[in-house]
Amino acid sequence: MKAIIDLCVVPLGVGVSVSEYVAACERILKEASLKTQLHAYGTNIEGDWDTVFAAVKRCHETVHAMGAPRISTVIKLGTRVDRDQTMDDKIRSVETKLR
Amino acid sequence: MKAIIDLCVVPLGVGVSVSEYVAACERILKEASLKTQLHAYGTNIEGDWDTVFAAVKRCHETVHAMGAPRISTVIKLGTRVDRDQTMDDKIRSVETKLR
Amino acid sequence: MKAIIDLCVVPLGVGVSVSEYVAACERILKEASLKTQLHAYGTNIEGDWDTVFAAVKRCHETVHAMGAPRISTVIKLGTRVDRDQTMDDKIRSVETKLR
Amino acid sequence: MKAIIDLCVVPLGVGVSVSEYVAACERILKEASLKTQLHAYGTNIEGDWDTVFAAVKRCHETVHAMGAPRISTVIKLGTRVDRDQTMDDKIRSVETKLR
Repeated sequence: MKAIIDLCVVPLGVGVSVSEYVAACERILKEASLKTQLHAYGTNIEGDWDTVFAAVKRCHETVHAMGAPRISTVIKLGTRVDRDQTMDDKIRSVETKLR
Repeated sequence: MKAIIDLCVVPLGVGVSVSEYVAACERILKEASLKTQLHAYGTNIEGDWDTVFAAVKRCHETVHAMGAPRISTVIKLGTRVDRDQTMDDKIRSVETKLR
Repeated sequence: MKAIIDLCVVPLGVGVSVSEYVAACERILKEASLKTQLHAYGTNIEGDWDTVFAAVKRCHETVHAMGAPRISTVIKLGTRVDRDQTMDDKIRSVETKLR
Repeated sequence: MKAIIDLCVVPLGVGVSVSEYVAACERILKEASLKTQLHAYGTNIEGDWDTVFAAVKRCHETVHAMGAPRISTVIKLGTRVDRDQTMDDKIRSVETKLR
């Protein structure tokens, strides 16, 4: 099953600056060969369900290993069985209607 | 790794009433022997990471099998390595400060 | 317009324990006479849209005033115009199907 | 108070294709002169708290007026008082650490 998710990992107990933890997650997602797009409030990820969630788990393990005692993550998760749809398709579908 | 998550599964393309799909997910979570608490905008779930996410996957598979062509789910996901904390602990911790 | 929301306020830069901030928000919601239900990963809130979001704003102002330099909040927000529905209705609707 | 939010409006009861509703929200956000960035699972929005949430309310009113009986929206909402930060700053902050 393919999934498109939006991932936002928020480490707690490490101060206000969280970008190094987000960068570590970006590296993990790239190593997993997942298609990703960073935005200002998370990262869009497209891939096989198991590959995606294995990478999310590795993000939590890594951010804890970097010193964060607590993590509060938000995931938006979309699956569909009526047709194949990519992240690019989703954006194009909205942009077409804005013309 | 233990996780406490808040799961909200929203099937699309099946009309406005989604309670039968939510009920199916509740059954899956119970069968997985996960500790859960239903609320008005989702379900709190406490358990081992892999068990939790295997159940979430089964929820998507089941809701699709029930006829939903598309699902948009929201997950809040907490892990911590500084100490063990249950869902009950989290609520009690706030309620103590409200007295 | 009536709204049912799920509010989860996460202060950053104040360490791992966030319960006193959550408790402060609970007090604000009560003072606003909103119907609320605390759970392990947020608070369900039911009320008039403007009253609800004025209270959410007051939560952010208060948590900042308590010393949190940064806040990352998650809101699930439901509105419907086909019929009136309370938080209790939503839970009952699922529980009926579990019997 | 300035806010950076991530908005994802999901209309229920209108079938699986939701792009026309998302496009209507994009128009509302532009008319409100808010800085926005559409991505594959929502829209990042930067602006004054009151302007942002007035626009979110108008989105719900409009999507209902377009025929959606029910809406389930997800908002991630960030505020900070330690320093001014834009959506571009947030992305740059992560990208710098990826080099």
